[in-house]
Amino acid sequence: MFSDTQSRPSAGMRDAMARAEVGDEQAGSDPATNALCARVADLLGMEDAVFMPSGTMCNLVAILVQTRPGDEIVVDGTSHIFNTEAAGAAAIAGVATLPLATRDGVFSAAQAEAAIRPAARTAPRPALISIENTTAFSGGSIWPLGTVREVRDVARRHGLKAHMDGARLLNAVAATGISAANYAAGFDSAWIDLSKGLGCPVGAVLCGTRAFIVEAWRWKYRLGGAMRQSGVLAAAGLYALDHHVAQLKVDNDNAAALDRGLRAIEGVKFEAATQSNILRFTVEGLNATAAAFVEACERRGVRFRATGAHEVRATTHLDVDAAGITRAIDVAGEVAAAFRRGGAGGSSPAA
Amino acid sequence: MFSDTQSRPSAGMRDAMARAEVGDEQAGSDPATNALCARVADLLGMEDAVFMPSGTMCNLVAILVQTRPGDEIVVDGTSHIFNTEAAGAAAIAGVATLPLATRDGVFSAAQAEAAIRPAARTAPRPALISIENTTAFSGGSIWPLGTVREVRDVARRHGLKAHMDGARLLNAVAATGISAANYAAGFDSAWIDLSKGLGCPVGAVLCGTRAFIVEAWRWKYRLGGAMRQSGVLAAAGLYALDHHVAQLKVDNDNAAALDRGLRAIEGVKFEAATQSNILRFTVEGLNATAAAFVEACERRGVRFRATGAHEVRATTHLDVDAAGITRAIDVAGEVAAAFRRGGAGGSSPAA
Amino acid sequence: MFSDTQSRPSAGMRDAMARAEVGDEQAGSDPATNALCARVADLLGMEDAVFMPSGTMCNLVAILVQTRPGDEIVVDGTSHIFNTEAAGAAAIAGVATLPLATRDGVFSAAQAEAAIRPAARTAPRPALISIENTTAFSGGSIWPLGTVREVRDVARRHGLKAHMDGARLLNAVAATGISAANYAAGFDSAWIDLSKGLGCPVGAVLCGTRAFIVEAWRWKYRLGGAMRQSGVLAAAGLYALDHHVAQLKVDNDNAAALDRGLRAIEGVKFEAATQSNILRFTVEGLNATAAAFVEACERRGVRFRATGAHEVRATTHLDVDAAGITRAIDVAGEVAAAFRRGGAGGSSPAA
Amino acid sequence: MFSDTQSRPSAGMRDAMARAEVGDEQAGSDPATNALCARVADLLGMEDAVFMPSGTMCNLVAILVQTRPGDEIVVDGTSHIFNTEAAGAAAIAGVATLPLATRDGVFSAAQAEAAIRPAARTAPRPALISIENTTAFSGGSIWPLGTVREVRDVARRHGLKAHMDGARLLNAVAATGISAANYAAGFDSAWIDLSKGLGCPVGAVLCGTRAFIVEAWRWKYRLGGAMRQSGVLAAAGLYALDHHVAQLKVDNDNAAALDRGLRAIEGVKFEAATQSNILRFTVEGLNATAAAFVEACERRGVRFRATGAHEVRATTHLDVDAAGITRAIDVAGEVAAAFRRGGAGGSSPAA
Repeated sequence: MFSDTQSRPSAGMRDAMARAEVGDEQAGSDPATNALCARVADLLGMEDAVFMPSGTMCNLVAILVQTRPGDEIVVDGTSHIFNTEAAGAAAIAGVATLPLATRDGVFSAAQAEAAIRPAARTAPRPALISIENTTAFSGGSIWPLGTVREVRDVARRHGLKAHMDGARLLNAVAATGISAANYAAGFDSAWIDLSKGLGCPVGAVLCGTRAFIVEAWRWKYRLGGAMRQSGVLAAAGLYALDHHVAQLKVDNDNAAALDRGLRAIEGVKFEAATQSNILRFTVEGLNATAAAFVEACERRGVRFRATGAHEVRATTHLDVDAAGITRAIDVAGEVAAAFRRGGAGGSSPAA
Repeated sequence: MFSDTQSRPSAGMRDAMARAEVGDEQAGSDPATNALCARVADLLGMEDAVFMPSGTMCNLVAILVQTRPGDEIVVDGTSHIFNTEAAGAAAIAGVATLPLATRDGVFSAAQAEAAIRPAARTAPRPALISIENTTAFSGGSIWPLGTVREVRDVARRHGLKAHMDGARLLNAVAATGISAANYAAGFDSAWIDLSKGLGCPVGAVLCGTRAFIVEAWRWKYRLGGAMRQSGVLAAAGLYALDHHVAQLKVDNDNAAALDRGLRAIEGVKFEAATQSNILRFTVEGLNATAAAFVEACERRGVRFRATGAHEVRATTHLDVDAAGITRAIDVAGEVAAAFRRGGAGGSSPAA
Repeated sequence: MFSDTQSRPSAGMRDAMARAEVGDEQAGSDPATNALCARVADLLGMEDAVFMPSGTMCNLVAILVQTRPGDEIVVDGTSHIFNTEAAGAAAIAGVATLPLATRDGVFSAAQAEAAIRPAARTAPRPALISIENTTAFSGGSIWPLGTVREVRDVARRHGLKAHMDGARLLNAVAATGISAANYAAGFDSAWIDLSKGLGCPVGAVLCGTRAFIVEAWRWKYRLGGAMRQSGVLAAAGLYALDHHVAQLKVDNDNAAALDRGLRAIEGVKFEAATQSNILRFTVEGLNATAAAFVEACERRGVRFRATGAHEVRATTHLDVDAAGITRAIDVAGEVAAAFRRGGAGGSSPAA
Repeated sequence: MFSDTQSRPSAGMRDAMARAEVGDEQAGSDPATNALCARVADLLGMEDAVFMPSGTMCNLVAILVQTRPGDEIVVDGTSHIFNTEAAGAAAIAGVATLPLATRDGVFSAAQAEAAIRPAARTAPRPALISIENTTAFSGGSIWPLGTVREVRDVARRHGLKAHMDGARLLNAVAATGISAANYAAGFDSAWIDLSKGLGCPVGAVLCGTRAFIVEAWRWKYRLGGAMRQSGVLAAAGLYALDHHVAQLKVDNDNAAALDRGLRAIEGVKFEAATQSNILRFTVEGLNATAAAFVEACERRGVRFRATGAHEVRATTHLDVDAAGITRAIDVAGEVAAAFRRGGAGGSSPAA
């Protein structure tokens, strides 16, 4: 449960890939890629879509198309764009990033509004507001639909574009029952990742208007993201939309079960409720560093991920079943007990 | 007292400009420019210097030379770089900017340390820490020398460059008696502005090592900042260093007097002590917007500057004398009284 | 025979993909991707390699890692970099491109030497020389090994990097028997494409020193080219290196046969000898535009590609067999005859 | 006669600068700067203008405003933009540069037309054609008005912008009597330099539509080119337009006299007629390198400029009078004679 990016293609998915009907995506003649794009555009209620090798390229291209150098984009301070895309927005698009401080990755319309600078020749030019739903580094929080809409409306009112990093949007859909199209309504661009909870090996799909996709293709090509017979990858995406979406609900349920189990362990603390397939907890109460806790669990066959000095993250996905959850809770409990006794790890008697 | 950028060349300065011995600065043969650069480098204890058309170009070039696209620089959230340089760092240098939250523009070494991201392929690469001394948009605060050094040492320890935006560094020197070289010791780059308190029409001087200046010249040229007979401007700088430095102490004293006078007015509030030539106060206690307050004062011949909904800024400089301070206090007092009575402005009886 | 980029995965290749052992390439734990990188690095005699979604990203990343903004790279005027990568070198790396005029895409060491500007603050800084072997838009010309070495040595002597766009390098190897490592010896970076003659659906592999690959990975990530279980694609590459390399010789032979057949057609002219799998000829002698000629052939089931007003390009690859070559010659002959009679196309009696 | 960039401010100009009425140009309140901009805009028949610290910034800003990253601009291969602006177009604007081969810096409409690439996702996007009138590095050639118009019309027909680097446009005006507005008619942007033949210490003025100037100001600011009391420089420009324009005719006449004198020297060769204030000749016929010839002349008090292995450039300007021309011809004749005798230079008996 290190990360849902580690999910592996299932046998059915591999079979679908092997049988994919392919062509040259650059010529618009790859049937599987075309079908996947049409399907995801429909899912998000958008006009058109483009297949990308990664979610990072989706965010980058959405920024490149909808800004110009010297612009500024408003994001959550824990977002992918601000933290884990290697400053691509600045390096490649030449845009500045204004990070908002949030408790759980969800900012308010009032925060967004206050962050939009008045027009001035000397100031960065506000151009785009981006939200991440669910939030990756804030424990998988789900944006309330009302907030999604209010923030979008702030963008519109000020003439800014609204973008949704929906890497795990379908996890929010699984948790709330609100449709993806409903979440994305009125956004200028939005995307979902195929290689996380959906279990595909590679890819993400970026959506927007037809005109937006024309320009997105131009940047996809310039960045080196244009492929050839991408249908072998797109077939996996189509398969996942047919067979793995229900799994996201299971992932959320597994995460809830894991949350209940871990919360019951003395010294493990949660700052917020677990809303989707990502859990965030601290082990400071065990007098353990996150690294030591994670290492001790890994020696027992369970992989968590240290994301701070004392902060640990777990993610459920289709390679994690109910038995795995039980096992994880048991192992975490053992390790916590060892730490509470004053030590843990492979070399100690407790191990 | 709108801004010290509005200061105008004195008769003596104009005369020095008219008599300047000039050559082609690009060929290194402009005597006045060479003399000014040598003098400012000496003042800041640096090896070499380059004359620039603006302080904005000093910050931009220091970033361009000392970073590469995809890097990140750590700055105060109220700094010039983050707010009033039109996102040049992102647009031209391709670097991200991490803004620190401060009360008065001065951040701590601990804040800087916490902001430096651990090395990761996915993260922006920390490259430079910049401090602004004095702080322009935080009321002219002076960085304590100890903090300056601690922040510089954080940069060094992590292999980052340390940069000082010293647009108004000589105002700090005038207030504390600490030399400019002492403030700038160990910094990789630093600059002072000539067109603010020093009263020159145009220019700033950027300092660093000899190797840094070689690359700075390359970027100055590429940006279009390379001039020809710049000695006509540099002569003003030399004159200012001879004749206007003492004035900066007077400017600080005038600011202190203005601070005392304004504080005595009911409804005018200061959040912090005035430390140099910039004052920041609020008029919310008068039920006035900053814009209305400023407009009412201007109709009476005194120019303040609205910098927020209720926040007003004043700056003293060599065109503002003691009589001007008295007049400003009187006018502010009258306008405040009118607002307290329930109205002000040209159209009201109170005006 | 429109382009070898249209080649489709064979049944064996699809099977290899379906059985690929995969992991997360970003964690360095995808076995097939690791194996492919090691193998291609070995093939080109380089230290290390990285898998990329496209050849365009290989060129772009090689430039990004080995230059800085304001640098200049020397290329052939018919190269991919200058013509068909959407100005990515300028747009993303900020580097200028100096195109050399060549007859067949192969420039001389003397041309390269003359193109390197003397050091000057005002000039673009020469940083890299790139050669394309074989040449895509100059009819698949093969660089003589001596010229490859002389140009590389010019780069070295002047402190520039030497880069080889080896999209179709293995076609040169098939034609000359000179090893890929021999061609690439002493180059700082080089790459081969998997999705052209090798028949893979997606991908290319960029090679260089270990230090180069570390930085290449950083840019691959920033551009959005970092994938997850890329082993499904890399497995195709491994399969192609095992099973499709011999085919490149067949492709070259087929091209030679097509060359002979087309040359025999009155009005069809070749400017140069066909050296590998790409043919370039003109139809001006038929009083036909390239577009009209191509369209008329396509109606008869043979796809050529118009690349100029009167210029046509054909490419052989593993989906084109000897019977296809015969058919193409026949169709081209019929169409040429129709044009010579004063018309062609579906609406004419000749069609 | 090294370069007209070496011209120095006259006494009258210095006096005008000392008496200039100034304000803050960034607030639009510098009277001399405003007057200069209005005057140059009128001279070039454009709506509006902005004062810049250099001609380099004029070209750069014109490109930045009128292109976006990934675009391509068409220029003469000997132009400032392609050769001596440190690749700013690529480094800062992210645009590629397509250099046309010309004999004298003047390309034809047919060349321009052929250089405009057809629209394709994979190609650089053509965005702007720039001409340089007169040509700096091609011997001061004057563009025929008909060619100017035809090239401009090619740009328009294809939806590209037309830009004129008019650094020495007034030299063309002096030579032909065609007005600057006539030359610039229908161009989207154009500029003249003040620091060359006009003899000002610093500055150039960029013109265009009002909307263009709004955006040009934004980039001027971002680049660090926004100054404060720039009126001290603008006053020199106003003075030059009043008093130095007639001198440009004298400069051209002096150049013609120098041309006649130098042509008469055995072994000195001109490839083209001298049309304005720049002369280009070769000394290969003397068996001398340009460097050696220039050095020998300089020892005798006359400065020419070596611009190639055997190529020498001379420029007339207001610091060069008729006596200086005579002296230059005499010195060149002596040096040439010494070289023809088999040696020259200070250390030889001939010196």
